[in-house]
Amino acid sequence: MHNNRKDMPMVPNRKASLPVVYGDTPSFLGADVLDARSLVKGYDVIVAGVPWEGTITWGSSSSCEQAPRTIRHASARYGGFLPEYEIDLFDHIKLGDIGDVTVNSGNPAATMKNVFAAMDAIYKNQSIPVVLGGDHSFTQEIVRALGANHGGDIGVIHFDAHFDNSPNFGDDEFPRCGPIHRISQLDNVRKESIVHLAIRGPRNSPSQFAYAKKMGASIFNIRDIRKHGMDSIIEKAITIARKNTKHVFVSICSDCIDAAFNPGGPADFNGLFPNELFSALYRLGEEGIAGLDYVEVYPKQDPQSVSSWGWLREIRTN
Amino acid sequence: MHNNRKDMPMVPNRKASLPVVYGDTPSFLGADVLDARSLVKGYDVIVAGVPWEGTITWGSSSSCEQAPRTIRHASARYGGFLPEYEIDLFDHIKLGDIGDVTVNSGNPAATMKNVFAAMDAIYKNQSIPVVLGGDHSFTQEIVRALGANHGGDIGVIHFDAHFDNSPNFGDDEFPRCGPIHRISQLDNVRKESIVHLAIRGPRNSPSQFAYAKKMGASIFNIRDIRKHGMDSIIEKAITIARKNTKHVFVSICSDCIDAAFNPGGPADFNGLFPNELFSALYRLGEEGIAGLDYVEVYPKQDPQSVSSWGWLREIRTN
Amino acid sequence: MHNNRKDMPMVPNRKASLPVVYGDTPSFLGADVLDARSLVKGYDVIVAGVPWEGTITWGSSSSCEQAPRTIRHASARYGGFLPEYEIDLFDHIKLGDIGDVTVNSGNPAATMKNVFAAMDAIYKNQSIPVVLGGDHSFTQEIVRALGANHGGDIGVIHFDAHFDNSPNFGDDEFPRCGPIHRISQLDNVRKESIVHLAIRGPRNSPSQFAYAKKMGASIFNIRDIRKHGMDSIIEKAITIARKNTKHVFVSICSDCIDAAFNPGGPADFNGLFPNELFSALYRLGEEGIAGLDYVEVYPKQDPQSVSSWGWLREIRTN
Amino acid sequence: MHNNRKDMPMVPNRKASLPVVYGDTPSFLGADVLDARSLVKGYDVIVAGVPWEGTITWGSSSSCEQAPRTIRHASARYGGFLPEYEIDLFDHIKLGDIGDVTVNSGNPAATMKNVFAAMDAIYKNQSIPVVLGGDHSFTQEIVRALGANHGGDIGVIHFDAHFDNSPNFGDDEFPRCGPIHRISQLDNVRKESIVHLAIRGPRNSPSQFAYAKKMGASIFNIRDIRKHGMDSIIEKAITIARKNTKHVFVSICSDCIDAAFNPGGPADFNGLFPNELFSALYRLGEEGIAGLDYVEVYPKQDPQSVSSWGWLREIRTN
Amino acid sequence: MHNNRKDMPMVPNRKASLPVVYGDTPSFLGADVLDARSLVKGYDVIVAGVPWEGTITWGSSSSCEQAPRTIRHASARYGGFLPEYEIDLFDHIKLGDIGDVTVNSGNPAATMKNVFAAMDAIYKNQSIPVVLGGDHSFTQEIVRALGANHGGDIGVIHFDAHFDNSPNFGDDEFPRCGPIHRISQLDNVRKESIVHLAIRGPRNSPSQFAYAKKMGASIFNIRDIRKHGMDSIIEKAITIARKNTKHVFVSICSDCIDAAFNPGGPADFNGLFPNELFSALYRLGEEGIAGLDYVEVYPKQDPQSVSSWGWLREIRTN
Amino acid sequence: MHNNRKDMPMVPNRKASLPVVYGDTPSFLGADVLDARSLVKGYDVIVAGVPWEGTITWGSSSSCEQAPRTIRHASARYGGFLPEYEIDLFDHIKLGDIGDVTVNSGNPAATMKNVFAAMDAIYKNQSIPVVLGGDHSFTQEIVRALGANHGGDIGVIHFDAHFDNSPNFGDDEFPRCGPIHRISQLDNVRKESIVHLAIRGPRNSPSQFAYAKKMGASIFNIRDIRKHGMDSIIEKAITIARKNTKHVFVSICSDCIDAAFNPGGPADFNGLFPNELFSALYRLGEEGIAGLDYVEVYPKQDPQSVSSWGWLREIRTN
Repeated sequence: MHNNRKDMPMVPNRKASLPVVYGDTPSFLGADVLDARSLVKGYDVIVAGVPWEGTITWGSSSSCEQAPRTIRHASARYGGFLPEYEIDLFDHIKLGDIGDVTVNSGNPAATMKNVFAAMDAIYKNQSIPVVLGGDHSFTQEIVRALGANHGGDIGVIHFDAHFDNSPNFGDDEFPRCGPIHRISQLDNVRKESIVHLAIRGPRNSPSQFAYAKKMGASIFNIRDIRKHGMDSIIEKAITIARKNTKHVFVSICSDCIDAAFNPGGPADFNGLFPNELFSALYRLGEEGIAGLDYVEVYPKQDPQSVSSWGWLREIRTN
Repeated sequence: MHNNRKDMPMVPNRKASLPVVYGDTPSFLGADVLDARSLVKGYDVIVAGVPWEGTITWGSSSSCEQAPRTIRHASARYGGFLPEYEIDLFDHIKLGDIGDVTVNSGNPAATMKNVFAAMDAIYKNQSIPVVLGGDHSFTQEIVRALGANHGGDIGVIHFDAHFDNSPNFGDDEFPRCGPIHRISQLDNVRKESIVHLAIRGPRNSPSQFAYAKKMGASIFNIRDIRKHGMDSIIEKAITIARKNTKHVFVSICSDCIDAAFNPGGPADFNGLFPNELFSALYRLGEEGIAGLDYVEVYPKQDPQSVSSWGWLREIRTN
Repeated sequence: MHNNRKDMPMVPNRKASLPVVYGDTPSFLGADVLDARSLVKGYDVIVAGVPWEGTITWGSSSSCEQAPRTIRHASARYGGFLPEYEIDLFDHIKLGDIGDVTVNSGNPAATMKNVFAAMDAIYKNQSIPVVLGGDHSFTQEIVRALGANHGGDIGVIHFDAHFDNSPNFGDDEFPRCGPIHRISQLDNVRKESIVHLAIRGPRNSPSQFAYAKKMGASIFNIRDIRKHGMDSIIEKAITIARKNTKHVFVSICSDCIDAAFNPGGPADFNGLFPNELFSALYRLGEEGIAGLDYVEVYPKQDPQSVSSWGWLREIRTN
Repeated sequence: MHNNRKDMPMVPNRKASLPVVYGDTPSFLGADVLDARSLVKGYDVIVAGVPWEGTITWGSSSSCEQAPRTIRHASARYGGFLPEYEIDLFDHIKLGDIGDVTVNSGNPAATMKNVFAAMDAIYKNQSIPVVLGGDHSFTQEIVRALGANHGGDIGVIHFDAHFDNSPNFGDDEFPRCGPIHRISQLDNVRKESIVHLAIRGPRNSPSQFAYAKKMGASIFNIRDIRKHGMDSIIEKAITIARKNTKHVFVSICSDCIDAAFNPGGPADFNGLFPNELFSALYRLGEEGIAGLDYVEVYPKQDPQSVSSWGWLREIRTN
Repeated sequence: MHNNRKDMPMVPNRKASLPVVYGDTPSFLGADVLDARSLVKGYDVIVAGVPWEGTITWGSSSSCEQAPRTIRHASARYGGFLPEYEIDLFDHIKLGDIGDVTVNSGNPAATMKNVFAAMDAIYKNQSIPVVLGGDHSFTQEIVRALGANHGGDIGVIHFDAHFDNSPNFGDDEFPRCGPIHRISQLDNVRKESIVHLAIRGPRNSPSQFAYAKKMGASIFNIRDIRKHGMDSIIEKAITIARKNTKHVFVSICSDCIDAAFNPGGPADFNGLFPNELFSALYRLGEEGIAGLDYVEVYPKQDPQSVSSWGWLREIRTN
Repeated sequence: MHNNRKDMPMVPNRKASLPVVYGDTPSFLGADVLDARSLVKGYDVIVAGVPWEGTITWGSSSSCEQAPRTIRHASARYGGFLPEYEIDLFDHIKLGDIGDVTVNSGNPAATMKNVFAAMDAIYKNQSIPVVLGGDHSFTQEIVRALGANHGGDIGVIHFDAHFDNSPNFGDDEFPRCGPIHRISQLDNVRKESIVHLAIRGPRNSPSQFAYAKKMGASIFNIRDIRKHGMDSIIEKAITIARKNTKHVFVSICSDCIDAAFNPGGPADFNGLFPNELFSALYRLGEEGIAGLDYVEVYPKQDPQSVSSWGWLREIRTN
């Protein structure tokens, strides 16, 4: 019923009408539910969750392992139409959801392998992964799978308040503050095409700054963005990430956004406004990217993660 | 005691000194309490509450039926003086408060009639209504009363994240997502003088967008406002709303504001900043309007609704 | 271990590694803990807390007496490095912490004397005080101590939503809404060099506005800042505060910031964005100031107070 | 489908399967929805809500006007079967729900008349009302309707921490602390057959105690109940309430229960344990009563109100 | 250092001194951390977590998958000494912790197999499992592993507000409301030795009651316990569970406890008081049991789960 | 106006009518406000607050330094009449309030001296102190002052979940877990007349238990109270505390009460029910005591502390 689709999502009992990815959790935005073990071709984008909370760098529990579930529940409030762009996501991409990757709280290495395997299957399926964290521990596995399946070097655009490039955190070799370090060790990644966006504040260490500088990464901190505008900065970021690379991967830590707009994330103020992130993502969608993760949502509230999917419009394996 | 008034609101036990509109609820900003059944002439603006929650479009209970009470309590913290405009509201308008309209939770149609009757009395009194919701179900009753009492066509400026122009929601013919549809059916309303401001996000349906387009309404979405600035957009909105009309009515859904500044409303980010709404309202006050409602406040917190009343300065029946 | 310092604050059990100022409360940003009764020379800046809640002007309890403790706990999450300025605070200043001033809830006058004595000792030590409130009652004691120890007139830059210049609040002669009035009575203070920044909203009274005007203070309200930009306004403020004075004192009420970014403060929207306050403070740090307080944090959440300390870089007794 | 009913309430989407009393609010326990204006015979018990909050005796807003809605939503989690009694409520009584009485926040007297009219219709229908408050203002209207429709005197069993027999509260003649006073003025009520149960704590005034004594009411305070046991006390209460009367009405203020078990009520500890209230209600159900109200639920949480309906088993007009 | 152990847990930084089971999560009560893949002999009791939330029977998310983590964090506040019994748990049993079982949110069947495998290893190690849920889906896997490793029939003592013996919930064959049904299908379980304790309230269906009756299970509902006392009831339960069986397994759903004492569980009042549960568990510890799980803790608050471990004193493989 | 007093506390604006002890904080139960420096004779009982939070033994901040303020605010809801005892506190004792003792967060020893000085003045005034904590650090100062002013030995009745008799906590010599140790060092205290009531749970260490035993203190743990009833146990406690002593001091840690009834205290379940504590206190009031403190209230919620004051009826210097 064509009309019906045009009424989405403004209909009674919307959530109950969506496919269920597990338990009573609807698929992300009502996407088709796919079996991770036997993917079907034809999906532009496949969503996967990683309900993982590894070592915490402050406090005792951030609850981010609940985010893949709660983001999907929140997404049931939304449809694919964005009036400010006058486009409907579902006119442009076919979206699937494979549910969550298996995690083992006591075994980060095994969990990372599970993430890799799921991502590997998605890339082999000629699809692009959109991954809902969990914490920031696993991004390198997505990039590794991208490298393993597609030739050519990779650039990385990283939205975050923090560098997240620590080699370790105490004894933990997969800490949430380290994915960019692990990414920078991958063969296919061109270090000079790593771009940090929205870096700010005294939660970063001098060592992390030095590491970013040493490997040749570009840093656009929040003052750069305020001074030049996101429209200009994102063009520079794309140019750098595209230089001598074949793919661009995007990793978004929710705290790139100012804490006022990100109540379910760490308390870091002076961050991006939603419109700055949304417009950058839309531009990246036009440009075409090879994968994305959105991590570190602490599910007390997380609704804003959804508004940005319009950028998926132009996504293709490139 | 002239001095005393000049000290307002910075005095001990301020709330206890204000007139009571019912129970222990102070009148809005300490306005004179009026008897709805026998209004007195001479009031420029009369405040009324509509403690109504009809069908909810997401979740089970939004608590907006408490807002007329909690907004009045919050308003006791404020006076009429706005230092950023160097004006005192009470130097310019005489403000009354008739308390709340009678509601019947099981009978939306009867409730709508009650709203109409209260508004009809206000317009007959040569006053202008400022209505505190409650949900967005009843706006058409205010506009209908305006049309019934004053000749000439009406333009509508609608601040909202959402179009709110659905013909129905399931079986409900007075849903909160539909007032603009019902307004557009009124004889006195000029459809091409309906202006939607701050529209955004995937909670809107394609059908709603299509309806707005079809009736000839103007849409200034959040990207338009970010691009051109609210000062410019509000001028355009006024021009459109004024074209071939005699009156302009203003309907404000709290979620026109970004959720960060509207903790007591729906979780829709990338909305207006307070200064954008406040300056637009001030400009509308200069221009002169024929009524206003402010709806969909969910009273966990709602204080920002009050700071904007400076615009009332220039209000007059026009 | 030099490397170790460069890893700060991204190390396990960071808080447990910091000096303790009392109980289990770490010193502010891990500063050296000093004995207030026998200060040691060589500290550029000395932090002190004033866990004071006097008369409340709205509601029953704001909890601001807990802020010196909770701000210090929050500061343990941070180091001194600010990537957006590429500087490390601790490369530029030597920071001490004397813990909290003794307070007596029943005796505001005695408490004020205690604040004065602590400040007097800090100035005599050739250091500059940074004071964590508590409410806004005691600022005049810091300025008084500055005047008592250093010759020359004093200008004051006051960031606040409110004038806070009431002569009294009921019977209370040290109300939180009055420090600027008490400061304006001090001999060393040049009234025309008092600058109010970010004033806004209907919680201010006409009398307060009139007092500011009468004494010749400058007012840059939030509309002025939005119109001209903080970069421009802060230069004007410095020029005025510096005119015919030898020292500039800075008093910051947390509600100068918009309530969205200041969840632990009063509900006053349409305030400063964090980047506006942070850049103004950085500029003041370059300019050099003679003391600062940060008050009215209500410790439900207060993390943003910390991000701004980069401005301390250039601080010196001037 | 008989089996299906036996699976209740342990089925998916239970709430969506229930009749809707208004908006998206299910009827109480899934009862038949009745039209208040044309009641049908054959219903043993008819539920009605009174979403009323009048003057508050402490604080600013208790939110009890939301309770009729939230109690109904909570009741959707339950069926009629009580394993501890091995009975199913719906094997014994036929239950209807007329939704809520119309309220007018500014007009207590008019609201009281509405309550009377609704109760009058229920009694005329040979049904018994169960009324969900709202605050404790309106109980006398139910008793008045009972008296108007059925001959013979009335006894009242009142579960409450407080006497609620004040003649007024300031100027308010319908305060929530006064229903027992108003009931005691009714012709059909036998004052000596009024029984207060679970009275306790320093929120009661000497005047209230004196009034209860003077009119000859019986008081079983919490110490009496602890000493003799509820089983014994409820028998005494029934005997007193039945003496020379023809009907017994039961009024329950949620704060008869200890605050630990009544998080949505006033903070009065040392109250009844749930098993004490439940067993007393069951006993009253066996005995047969002529109506009941349950008031002063503040809907932050209210689930315990539902577990007690087993007593409805034996209800009949007596 | 013997003295040191005697000071536990009243020492600074207690949590930081405990072994870590994963990330920064301490082992339960500071137990030795064991490798699940190569268990070591000599441990009387081995703790395992199952961070699993399957289909939810009410609402959208209960957060019980976080409980294994949060219970361990809470346990760091406690030692092994119980002054009311004058015993120290660690004088009687050697306790290990293997961390959490691997879960796959989209694959309940695979998760159940993981639970079985972990339990199988524990029983093969001559240890007894204590399992921290997660929801109530997996209990049959523990009992199955018990049966697979030790000869003889099994009795089950089940503390719960609800029967939890539904054959399915919609399409889900492993629902949280069904473990007792699945247990009753196991060969080694003697149906007549299943004992339900603390059953109560209208969240149970007639079908569940009928199933319990039909299979010959015993039911001691909350009224039975109130009437006869837990001391008496637990003896009866042990006698029934022991009749013609060789092992007794204990399954505890947190909502057996009254909601007032179980803020992190479902809102079911009129449940056990803590002393009733604790003394029953102590008695079971004396008697000796063959395994236990504690499920359905929703980690907003969960501290009470810990106080009961004194009963572990007498545990042995029997 | 005699009648007026009999209406207390059921009158509008009750709190505003009470004397203010500081800021806008009413005196405890509306007691006369006294000047601590020049006490007036004739007061049976004098209330003092100690807004002190020293080292925390778990977590980072308990907020108990706010309790003297918040308990007083809560007390404004109450009068002196207790219907369950049919007495009015104010018919029996004359009550004063001296506000709070001066505290210095960085100097526990100085703070202790301040407590001693305040208590010394109260005893010299022939009054009895009732002290509102604050944490449990300072009880020995009250007992010390009692000993210094009145001849004869002292017995101590201590209501608490925990022994609180640690000699130190890390380096802190005045920890909240140690007052009973410090009391036991005082000359006038008879160790064998120290009675611990309501001890329970694994937050106690073996060393603490051993210390209590070694000094000859009596322990009535929660199981003893459940078994024999509080009425019997309190008689035994009085007998022991009175044996060879002249005075009995009572120290109450809020966590003697079960956490369900003490939401503003530590999460220790299986504690006293309110009626058990209240009746014990009433009995102690009849018996006559020489002072009391009530500590460790964490002011998120604390209202229950007030209901118990009926016992003050019979207090006298004895």
